[in-house]
Amino acid sequence: VKTVSGTAAAPSRERRVLDAAVEVFWEKGYAAGSVREIADVAGLPKTSLYHVISSKDELLFRIFDESHRTSLAMMDEVAAMPGTPLARLRAYVERFVAYYVENIKPVGLYYRERRFIGGDRAATLRAQRRDYDRFVRGLIEAARTAGEADLEVEPTLATFFVIGALNDISEWYEPAAGVTPAEFAAAYAEVALASVTPA
Amino acid sequence: VKTVSGTAAAPSRERRVLDAAVEVFWEKGYAAGSVREIADVAGLPKTSLYHVISSKDELLFRIFDESHRTSLAMMDEVAAMPGTPLARLRAYVERFVAYYVENIKPVGLYYRERRFIGGDRAATLRAQRRDYDRFVRGLIEAARTAGEADLEVEPTLATFFVIGALNDISEWYEPAAGVTPAEFAAAYAEVALASVTPA
Repeated sequence: VKTVSGTAAAPSRERRVLDAAVEVFWEKGYAAGSVREIADVAGLPKTSLYHVISSKDELLFRIFDESHRTSLAMMDEVAAMPGTPLARLRAYVERFVAYYVENIKPVGLYYRERRFIGGDRAATLRAQRRDYDRFVRGLIEAARTAGEADLEVEPTLATFFVIGALNDISEWYEPAAGVTPAEFAAAYAEVALASVTPA
Repeated sequence: VKTVSGTAAAPSRERRVLDAAVEVFWEKGYAAGSVREIADVAGLPKTSLYHVISSKDELLFRIFDESHRTSLAMMDEVAAMPGTPLARLRAYVERFVAYYVENIKPVGLYYRERRFIGGDRAATLRAQRRDYDRFVRGLIEAARTAGEADLEVEPTLATFFVIGALNDISEWYEPAAGVTPAEFAAAYAEVALASVTPA
């Protein structure tokens, strides 16, 4: 029987499942993590997981999709900002890095495990990655046109370089005492900006 | 009976096992790849694998160790080079990137799968990673001292930035027609150098 409280509890069950999946996939890797373990960590019977998701693959995809929606919102926000292309690149890197270090596991999983997503969802991930590359590359190219960027640096490689340096954060980041995510993000953005500005 | 030809064949069996392990771990991920599949790909009976390695973990470690020895040799070579710290940083990035793109699978596996290495070997990997960080950081710091590097860029973050951008190569690199690994490496090194030089 679907009650009002039952309806209200539905998003919370989904949240618990996604959070548990993040923990299990982060700890064991996607390939070795099982739906049974995720159910255990979520404190739910395994069968009830299939009300939330249809497969392990879908679960991983849903984790990525949450991060992607946040990234999209950031890109829209930054695209609408005043200022030079380089100022927008800095704003984007700062926002993305701050979000990443506050969500190391779900965002880091994207870089670690995205190759395990198959079929139509893999095509969606590739399209999302292209949007993301195109956004960063667009800012770098606009910075060149505006005379803000080093002309010796090839925009496609600079895009991969910056995105690569962002991706890898989950592999080494450790919160430092007295340094907020925003401060860390600002310092990292400084390095990212230096990589595209003229020597 | 150990014959002369039997002795000569030993390294070749090891080579086949390591190469097969690279293929299987790259395709399926370390967690999902099995010793049985590696034996099949190597064209050897599973039991004979245990003459070469004692565990799956050791196999992955041996793959990493080969790359590490090559990296060490590069570091030694570059450390002995004449020229400024920045010229040595460029030389190192060029050599490393060229080696990486010619060995995408074994080198890329290090970045994808190193967290699966446990115990004493994990400590060895951490020590190796520290050597590697220290080398790049040493060049960046020397470049600062020599007045070649941007003082606004914090050396530890710049080190992570450059190393992160290198690590990620296996996730997006595709050989382009008419571009040699050395040419690609030189262009990528250009971006890496820009990230630490003054704007």
